[in-house]
Amino acid sequence: EDLSNKLREEFKENVIKDAVQESLISPNVRADDKPDFRIVGQVFDTYWIIEYKNSMYIIDQHAAHEKVNYEKYLKQFKENGVDKQYLNPPVVISLNGQAEAVVNEYKDNLDKFGYEIENFGDKEYIIRSVPYNLLNLDYADVLQEFIGKLDSNMGSLTNDTINDRIATMSCKAAIKGNMAISEREANELVSTLLTLDDPFNCPHGRPTMIEISKKDMERKFKRIV
Amino acid sequence: EDLSNKLREEFKENVIKDAVQESLISPNVRADDKPDFRIVGQVFDTYWIIEYKNSMYIIDQHAAHEKVNYEKYLKQFKENGVDKQYLNPPVVISLNGQAEAVVNEYKDNLDKFGYEIENFGDKEYIIRSVPYNLLNLDYADVLQEFIGKLDSNMGSLTNDTINDRIATMSCKAAIKGNMAISEREANELVSTLLTLDDPFNCPHGRPTMIEISKKDMERKFKRIV
Repeated sequence: EDLSNKLREEFKENVIKDAVQESLISPNVRADDKPDFRIVGQVFDTYWIIEYKNSMYIIDQHAAHEKVNYEKYLKQFKENGVDKQYLNPPVVISLNGQAEAVVNEYKDNLDKFGYEIENFGDKEYIIRSVPYNLLNLDYADVLQEFIGKLDSNMGSLTNDTINDRIATMSCKAAIKGNMAISEREANELVSTLLTLDDPFNCPHGRPTMIEISKKDMERKFKRIV
Repeated sequence: EDLSNKLREEFKENVIKDAVQESLISPNVRADDKPDFRIVGQVFDTYWIIEYKNSMYIIDQHAAHEKVNYEKYLKQFKENGVDKQYLNPPVVISLNGQAEAVVNEYKDNLDKFGYEIENFGDKEYIIRSVPYNLLNLDYADVLQEFIGKLDSNMGSLTNDTINDRIATMSCKAAIKGNMAISEREANELVSTLLTLDDPFNCPHGRPTMIEISKKDMERKFKRIV
């Protein structure tokens, strides 16, 4: 327990510092494919106004980031598994019987979700990696919550369970409303969002953006009927 | 006619140059009374997005300027008459019989509207002043149109006629959509608009701005129900 606490402290000092200095959104749009939009500004520290192809869009930074994370994590999960962020030093946690059973049963699946976990003797487990880009969250808490939602008697994961877990991860990894992000970061986020197949809804069904076309605007202001 | 053309040319060269270098919106808001809003940016070269008192507003720069002009001109008209902009050199125009009758009948009223007009021999009239801040319009054309709407048999002006003439002047003097204005000018325009008693509608009944409150936004994005 002392070792665990010590590791936890070191982790907080070192890894969190690294994590927050990283880009919030890993740029996965090639420069030539960058959609031709213009950032107008931000409202209520949460919504970004952009102009794109004769429309104005109001974008919720949290819902947008959640959606971008979701598509990214889901794609990775289906290919080689979610990208891992190795913790240095790793984090040690204690698991109760139920959680331990889940970890042992789903070890390979947890690995695909980005969690590399190993028994460390007794009920202590060592977390070597977490899903990439989880920001500066308390990884141990996130993992506990992640495991808590899995049923130890299920055998294999259903698509619904996978989608649900990916959605939760995506939400947790997403910037929140009222969280300051730079215009450069907003630019990357919007670029990535606009290149998705269905950019309009986040995995929990909330809208990521609202469109007001130039024509809509002209109608609202009675410039045209 | 030669003199008239010569004066017209000089007028175009000198007066228009002066006029465009002036501020679009005469600042009539004292610094302490300036409403505490923030300009977010401009969309479609026409609409300004601002954040003010927990709401986002989309403001049509033309309708807003028309409204601001209307209130300003109407106030001036009711007090000492619309502020005049003296033309140097003055503009000479030829009036037909009907227009001449109107000018003679409404001389004092035209003066209150900012037009100082004098007979220059025969059917030639000299325009010494026009309403202040008419921008770089062709003043002779504007006056002709102004006179054309007045009925020479009316005797005195009704309130409706005055309001209608002021509204037309305000519209003509207003910046248009797609006309580039600086953020400083937008700032002055919005400041003035927000201090009016009823800032939401322009004299022709079109909206000057559309409000989306923070709560509305949260509802649209299903952050709250």
